[in-house]
Amino acid sequence: MIKKITIIGSGNVATILSKVIINKGFSINQVFSKSKINAEILIKKLATNQQIKATDNIAEIDNTSDIYIICVKDDAIATVVNQFLFKDKLIVHTSGSVDITVFNGFNQFGVFYPLQTFSKDKDADVANVPFCIEGNSKQTTQLLIDLATSFSNKVYEINSEQRKVLHLAAVFACNFTNYMYAVAAKITTKNNINFDILKPLIIETAKKIEYQLPKEAQTGPAKRKDFNTIQKHLQMLEDNDELKEIYQLISSRIERES
Amino acid sequence: MIKKITIIGSGNVATILSKVIINKGFSINQVFSKSKINAEILIKKLATNQQIKATDNIAEIDNTSDIYIICVKDDAIATVVNQFLFKDKLIVHTSGSVDITVFNGFNQFGVFYPLQTFSKDKDADVANVPFCIEGNSKQTTQLLIDLATSFSNKVYEINSEQRKVLHLAAVFACNFTNYMYAVAAKITTKNNINFDILKPLIIETAKKIEYQLPKEAQTGPAKRKDFNTIQKHLQMLEDNDELKEIYQLISSRIERES
Repeated sequence: MIKKITIIGSGNVATILSKVIINKGFSINQVFSKSKINAEILIKKLATNQQIKATDNIAEIDNTSDIYIICVKDDAIATVVNQFLFKDKLIVHTSGSVDITVFNGFNQFGVFYPLQTFSKDKDADVANVPFCIEGNSKQTTQLLIDLATSFSNKVYEINSEQRKVLHLAAVFACNFTNYMYAVAAKITTKNNINFDILKPLIIETAKKIEYQLPKEAQTGPAKRKDFNTIQKHLQMLEDNDELKEIYQLISSRIERES
Repeated sequence: MIKKITIIGSGNVATILSKVIINKGFSINQVFSKSKINAEILIKKLATNQQIKATDNIAEIDNTSDIYIICVKDDAIATVVNQFLFKDKLIVHTSGSVDITVFNGFNQFGVFYPLQTFSKDKDADVANVPFCIEGNSKQTTQLLIDLATSFSNKVYEINSEQRKVLHLAAVFACNFTNYMYAVAAKITTKNNINFDILKPLIIETAKKIEYQLPKEAQTGPAKRKDFNTIQKHLQMLEDNDELKEIYQLISSRIERES
């Protein structure tokens, strides 16, 4: 059973996971960050009596923890893994896009991917965060599922191929969606209109997916093939070729699929 | 003061408005729909003791109401307005994209635009729906603001030019966002992954706008210029040129603006 945990990283995921680890009665042994100050800041945020060591030296990471959770940026994971000394310890990363094979040469390893967008300084509702779990063996997978289940109600066993697909889908569902919000904010602000007017619409559009398939929830000029309105909108975007291109491309897709 | 209302239309907006009109103690005189059955269905849904007449004949609309609210599709508004007999009565439409000049020749007119996405059979939280109001005179505007204020806490005076801009911004914030959800659902379903896993992410992404500007909330491979992941994603979309095009276009915009 997992009791003692080492956190590698000090960003959003490291912070959110560390908080829930402490809240759920597990103990954190060490926090590694390439910036020791950031590791110390993270530990301070936890406001716990536990004696947690901060380090910026991978060689200082000790072998007394039950699991080592890597929460660094995707492109830094391989470097951390290569420098990590204890090939027999249970080690996982938290990335949506990095393959489990990054741990080749280890004995117990896996992926512990919280599929959510986190802000460092805002408490996350971790109980509703989907955790996507993959282990190198049945036993490892079960250990990781047990750990995730003590954090969240939404635990899924997801292999590396599926996780890559999920990550791609999440780019559309989260990153590109947020870009649409940014475009809307830009258009309103440029015209001295308060972006707040659009916020209830944005929230309701997201909530609709709880009870309706997105394809069925589609509305708007392109959906109803209202070419008159589409033309007017394209004229309004005349001074911004790139937004115009996005408007045209997505509208044509919606039209065709309707 | 407005007490007695005629509803022209029987779709989502007509249904939502009729419900709040009854709930707030106003009376509905008639409901017009080009399909009389649909007008009758709407009236039945209201489950009220009020005697409300259903009609599918514009000539049967009487002149005893204080306001006539047109809730038909954008491209049918001009036709309804042209056939409407009482040029001295207060008349409004509820569209985001139709100019107030559609009422040329009338004495009291305006726009009463609820900026929200509605589902006919789901009760809307009308108190939080932004109403965008425009009147042909100060007096008309005030009458419409008073009516909207009895429905909602979010009432804005918005002229026709601003409303067109808002409507364009809403296409990005709502319609195109929903299309991103549909793409995500398509990608997951095609790969036998439960789309539910993405729902908490979608909700949280929307909620972020309550406390952060969308531009500042932007995350993802394009934002952090992670070209390795972007390349992998484009390879995964190899069999779908149009999704690939959307992925490339939006990613390049996010990269450049980051």
